[in-house]
Amino acid sequence: MPRANGRNFRELRPVTIERHYLKYAEGSALISIGDTCLICSASIEDKVPPFLRNSGMGWLTAEYSLLPRATKERTVREAAKGRLSGRTQEIQRLIGRALRSVTDLQALGERTIWIDCDVIQADGGTRTAAITGSFVALVDALATLTKDEANARLPVRDFLAAVSVGLVNGEMLLDLDFEEDAAAWVDMNIVMTASGRLVEVQGTAEKEPFTREEMNAMLELGMEGIAALVEVQRQALGPLADKVGGKNE
Amino acid sequence: MPRANGRNFRELRPVTIERHYLKYAEGSALISIGDTCLICSASIEDKVPPFLRNSGMGWLTAEYSLLPRATKERTVREAAKGRLSGRTQEIQRLIGRALRSVTDLQALGERTIWIDCDVIQADGGTRTAAITGSFVALVDALATLTKDEANARLPVRDFLAAVSVGLVNGEMLLDLDFEEDAAAWVDMNIVMTASGRLVEVQGTAEKEPFTREEMNAMLELGMEGIAALVEVQRQALGPLADKVGGKNE
Amino acid sequence: MPRANGRNFRELRPVTIERHYLKYAEGSALISIGDTCLICSASIEDKVPPFLRNSGMGWLTAEYSLLPRATKERTVREAAKGRLSGRTQEIQRLIGRALRSVTDLQALGERTIWIDCDVIQADGGTRTAAITGSFVALVDALATLTKDEANARLPVRDFLAAVSVGLVNGEMLLDLDFEEDAAAWVDMNIVMTASGRLVEVQGTAEKEPFTREEMNAMLELGMEGIAALVEVQRQALGPLADKVGGKNE
Amino acid sequence: MPRANGRNFRELRPVTIERHYLKYAEGSALISIGDTCLICSASIEDKVPPFLRNSGMGWLTAEYSLLPRATKERTVREAAKGRLSGRTQEIQRLIGRALRSVTDLQALGERTIWIDCDVIQADGGTRTAAITGSFVALVDALATLTKDEANARLPVRDFLAAVSVGLVNGEMLLDLDFEEDAAAWVDMNIVMTASGRLVEVQGTAEKEPFTREEMNAMLELGMEGIAALVEVQRQALGPLADKVGGKNE
Amino acid sequence: MPRANGRNFRELRPVTIERHYLKYAEGSALISIGDTCLICSASIEDKVPPFLRNSGMGWLTAEYSLLPRATKERTVREAAKGRLSGRTQEIQRLIGRALRSVTDLQALGERTIWIDCDVIQADGGTRTAAITGSFVALVDALATLTKDEANARLPVRDFLAAVSVGLVNGEMLLDLDFEEDAAAWVDMNIVMTASGRLVEVQGTAEKEPFTREEMNAMLELGMEGIAALVEVQRQALGPLADKVGGKNE
Amino acid sequence: MPRANGRNFRELRPVTIERHYLKYAEGSALISIGDTCLICSASIEDKVPPFLRNSGMGWLTAEYSLLPRATKERTVREAAKGRLSGRTQEIQRLIGRALRSVTDLQALGERTIWIDCDVIQADGGTRTAAITGSFVALVDALATLTKDEANARLPVRDFLAAVSVGLVNGEMLLDLDFEEDAAAWVDMNIVMTASGRLVEVQGTAEKEPFTREEMNAMLELGMEGIAALVEVQRQALGPLADKVGGKNE
Repeated sequence: MPRANGRNFRELRPVTIERHYLKYAEGSALISIGDTCLICSASIEDKVPPFLRNSGMGWLTAEYSLLPRATKERTVREAAKGRLSGRTQEIQRLIGRALRSVTDLQALGERTIWIDCDVIQADGGTRTAAITGSFVALVDALATLTKDEANARLPVRDFLAAVSVGLVNGEMLLDLDFEEDAAAWVDMNIVMTASGRLVEVQGTAEKEPFTREEMNAMLELGMEGIAALVEVQRQALGPLADKVGGKNE
Repeated sequence: MPRANGRNFRELRPVTIERHYLKYAEGSALISIGDTCLICSASIEDKVPPFLRNSGMGWLTAEYSLLPRATKERTVREAAKGRLSGRTQEIQRLIGRALRSVTDLQALGERTIWIDCDVIQADGGTRTAAITGSFVALVDALATLTKDEANARLPVRDFLAAVSVGLVNGEMLLDLDFEEDAAAWVDMNIVMTASGRLVEVQGTAEKEPFTREEMNAMLELGMEGIAALVEVQRQALGPLADKVGGKNE
Repeated sequence: MPRANGRNFRELRPVTIERHYLKYAEGSALISIGDTCLICSASIEDKVPPFLRNSGMGWLTAEYSLLPRATKERTVREAAKGRLSGRTQEIQRLIGRALRSVTDLQALGERTIWIDCDVIQADGGTRTAAITGSFVALVDALATLTKDEANARLPVRDFLAAVSVGLVNGEMLLDLDFEEDAAAWVDMNIVMTASGRLVEVQGTAEKEPFTREEMNAMLELGMEGIAALVEVQRQALGPLADKVGGKNE
Repeated sequence: MPRANGRNFRELRPVTIERHYLKYAEGSALISIGDTCLICSASIEDKVPPFLRNSGMGWLTAEYSLLPRATKERTVREAAKGRLSGRTQEIQRLIGRALRSVTDLQALGERTIWIDCDVIQADGGTRTAAITGSFVALVDALATLTKDEANARLPVRDFLAAVSVGLVNGEMLLDLDFEEDAAAWVDMNIVMTASGRLVEVQGTAEKEPFTREEMNAMLELGMEGIAALVEVQRQALGPLADKVGGKNE
Repeated sequence: MPRANGRNFRELRPVTIERHYLKYAEGSALISIGDTCLICSASIEDKVPPFLRNSGMGWLTAEYSLLPRATKERTVREAAKGRLSGRTQEIQRLIGRALRSVTDLQALGERTIWIDCDVIQADGGTRTAAITGSFVALVDALATLTKDEANARLPVRDFLAAVSVGLVNGEMLLDLDFEEDAAAWVDMNIVMTASGRLVEVQGTAEKEPFTREEMNAMLELGMEGIAALVEVQRQALGPLADKVGGKNE
Repeated sequence: MPRANGRNFRELRPVTIERHYLKYAEGSALISIGDTCLICSASIEDKVPPFLRNSGMGWLTAEYSLLPRATKERTVREAAKGRLSGRTQEIQRLIGRALRSVTDLQALGERTIWIDCDVIQADGGTRTAAITGSFVALVDALATLTKDEANARLPVRDFLAAVSVGLVNGEMLLDLDFEEDAAAWVDMNIVMTASGRLVEVQGTAEKEPFTREEMNAMLELGMEGIAALVEVQRQALGPLADKVGGKNE
């Protein structure tokens, strides 16, 4: 079964990241991966949640939302329903946890970074695209805190990106689109640093339990995808890329 | 007091409308008016609310939302708060009422059109831009219902656009941006058809009550703005523009 | 088509305002306009919302509610549904905005006036009756703040009343009752001061867009109605009426 | 310690019941007991809750609400808070249970009676006044169902009224006002039929547990109050009073 | 009609109270009365609600919940519905009021006791079992506040227990199980101290109003049940029982 | 750093499963793993959610809740807050997904299984204990559907259990208790079948990203734990264990 647009099994869809997409946010990016498209922004607030007051540490939290016609069928707004779905909460907890893992909250000081991921169009892989795109918005926001210091390192330890891998009809595929995702036997989301360390692995048997060997092969394929995504992030960030992670390498 | 970008008092900001902005929606448009920018979509659902069942008539309803960093300071999501603000409800009722006034709900049949207006960036005039942009998305959505019939009229009676006018520091200005709006003594939103008939007039004394003469002058200025906006809509719609409104003229 | 009770087209329904209707409120009034009847109260609280703290300025806010059997069919309580309808929020925002426009919030000092409008019976025009009746409750409440000073002006700049006008079957009518409102082509609510200045104009084409000429004629008719309503307010307030607005005239 | 207005310990406050207070409701009454004042209405809906469908039986349910300035300090609206307080829910469950106990739900047929009790002014005893006043509204509503049949009995078995009794500073008092209620050691609400049978007894030690003897004395006193209240109901209902309860006596 | 398990009309079901059921709570008990079974816990928090701040007094509040399969048919969780039912609120208000009546809030100081009653299995009488079981948890929690003082009295004035009595098919029964409760003509809950004083009496005619004589007989029977329940509480508490109530007798 | 109770790094805490813990549920179990303790129940409802109607397939869904004093500090009830936390929603989605993966929804027919997991005491590992315990309740519930057929296979494909593994201070530990979990660098939850196939793997770097080698070692250790847990499930189920999974092996 061939993939859409002649893509091979181990290939990402075309990825672009447009920085400074919004005028007001401290950092923002429009990320497109195939037909999946999100606005990611990073906002800085000069206070922290109660549990961190007077701790000297900062915090990072994330919110995620779908525009109603991001999807094939119109999705009812969560604001209209008055409550967030379990799916939304799970995704925004994942995004926040992932980005916190590479942010130096001590160096950030008593500030909160709000990451907002709004999905303009959803063709599979929105949560992984949200992490990959938000990382760029985060770096831009952090840069506003140190802009006067030419050589200052940013309080972020390493590049971070995320990708999905899946078992679909017996084939192992990188970066599933919506149709592939719906047909997947196993769906795995991998969040990883540029240095190849794992931050989050979530593998779920949607139809059939999977073996240890399949698990390993999926991780291998995911690593290749992450490397390619980090390269796109570096290109987008240009010279700012060099200020990422130096402190901890 | 000069206006930003050297704009004169009776001039709109630059306006662009990009059709087919979303892949899945029956109709969609990205409208930019200066730094104000919204995604408008029109979705067709094959059923109507309970009060119209078996009436043979259709319905149109609208929803409006701000992305959190559309604004200078991050706005808390209404989905996170679990309830819509009064401002949001007032705006979405206005958009729905305005577009219904030119839609032939009888000809539409038992279908609901969902208009979604999501503000990407908010620099004043989002509710009027929402009406102007959604009109284009609506026309495209209605066209999908009649696509096989080359000469069919669309079930929409006339072009419709909206604009704000205001009294700011004693001057009468067209199309207020955010700073002008915040300083306005009087703020008026006008929704009008291409044929110059009024659909909605909302004038509010934010600081000082206004006279009948000022009211008249503001209406005059609004009419000029509406004419210019309808021209942009016509350009965006191209040949489809000719299918609007013929039936009732 | 004759009007109910032989009323002519440019005539208000019978209006009565009963002051001091409630024992505990600082100001209160029972207003009846035909079969429409509301309890309006004004309560004074010695603090302001967060955005005004330490500003030296006061605030005024309004709430509006229908008793379940104010209406022909029983209306479900918003407290039972757990959320305010868009209509309710729109009306209470209008009432608050209108009364703030004539209140001297600076002279009020750091206090909040709570206006409560509870509709006992709804036969059209409840939002305009709410404004007209609440103005009297407001004056009484403000008088409690200056009661020891015999000649003190109240912190309210001018009388304020509201009325509806409409186009119904081609006729222009003042003060629509429920049936007229339901049949109206155009519905306009006008809020005006005694000195003839406009505070809010909301005209909506319910069935057919309207012309500039019709708009002007509706404003003329509304002005007549406002003048008559202000006279009822003056009668109700008696000597206290003289303490209104002197400072700014 | 003398009571307000020279009332003696075993005396009710002045009671008046005004029938047909609302134009649209099937039954309605304005009840005043001293400074406590409520609008009670009874609405008939031609369907029953799911658990009674196709049972041939009817239902009666009650709702209760305070206007914000019914109280000395303004009370926040439950509609604004988005949830009913425990106190409100307890009271409306009590009202519904009490009125159902004398209503012949079988004879009512598959209809729901909605009782609405809206407190205009609250000076103690609002829940008992709600029961006493709603009974009159209920009878009027039921009469609309049998209006063509001159001799028809109404589907209500007996008169029903409610009163409070309390131990305040060692004295046993009938019909507590707000200040007495706040000072009471024991507060008891009694719901009783005209024939002297108990429908609900709720006695609560607010400050001190009470003895069996005190309990008995409070019940005696309550019975006297109920008899007086039923007499007021009979006067208000006039000839309609004779159609109450015959069937089951 | 014989009772389940050969129980006679004036007999309680088997009652057991297991103290220290939970590891973390300051006080906790598992109470079983027949097949009805609840976990009761008492937690101490070192602050009071706003209305008691700086009063020197403490507070006690209670919450009550059913596990979904405590009942014959699965009950939908109130957390899933997003609001507490009227029944739940009524019960938790009763539990809190009852336990406060014997707690010396002055001696407690500015602390809040949280009582949690979670029903594992519901076969009638859960609210009375909640009071009886929570009393034991409360005593254990209060003991942690005075543990260093060997002879210290606890800030609780007397033993407190609760039981239901009912009229079922003409018979007067103690401690109704679920089936008896569903069939009851009259249902009465009695909360009483060890010294025989009443704290709360709630009698409700579910099917038929009841007489003064029946009321008296039900109170007599309830007193017998309370005495037996207090004996079980004393056994469970062992030596700690002697520290209850001395101060005020 | 030694573990509590002298446990070695690769050892589970003591595990017990008590079947038939509740009287009314079709299946139920009390599972204790060290001080962590939950009531799991499985309820059968004879209908399915809308998306499965007329599909011939069944469904399984799970809910999870903490009793307030399951935790060291009292946790506020989600029913009182009126919304489920993200953590709760994430856990109940995981439990449902895991149990669905081994349930033959086709063979179940148009029924819904409701799994309820109520945590009595929480000392780490509640979500994995919920899966392990609910599996037993599920088997008992499914057995009620086939009880007349002596040799019938149950519609469940394989045994299923879950366990946590973590990296704590450089050591790899099985089955983390609360303190270990709070100190963990990496926390991994593994859901696996008796035949060694993975159903869900969720590994999260709480403090430090982890390597592929560490990932592999954690999976190995988890497999050992799962095998031991399945053995406890088999013992608890006794002869019923033989009816699990035969059909699909």
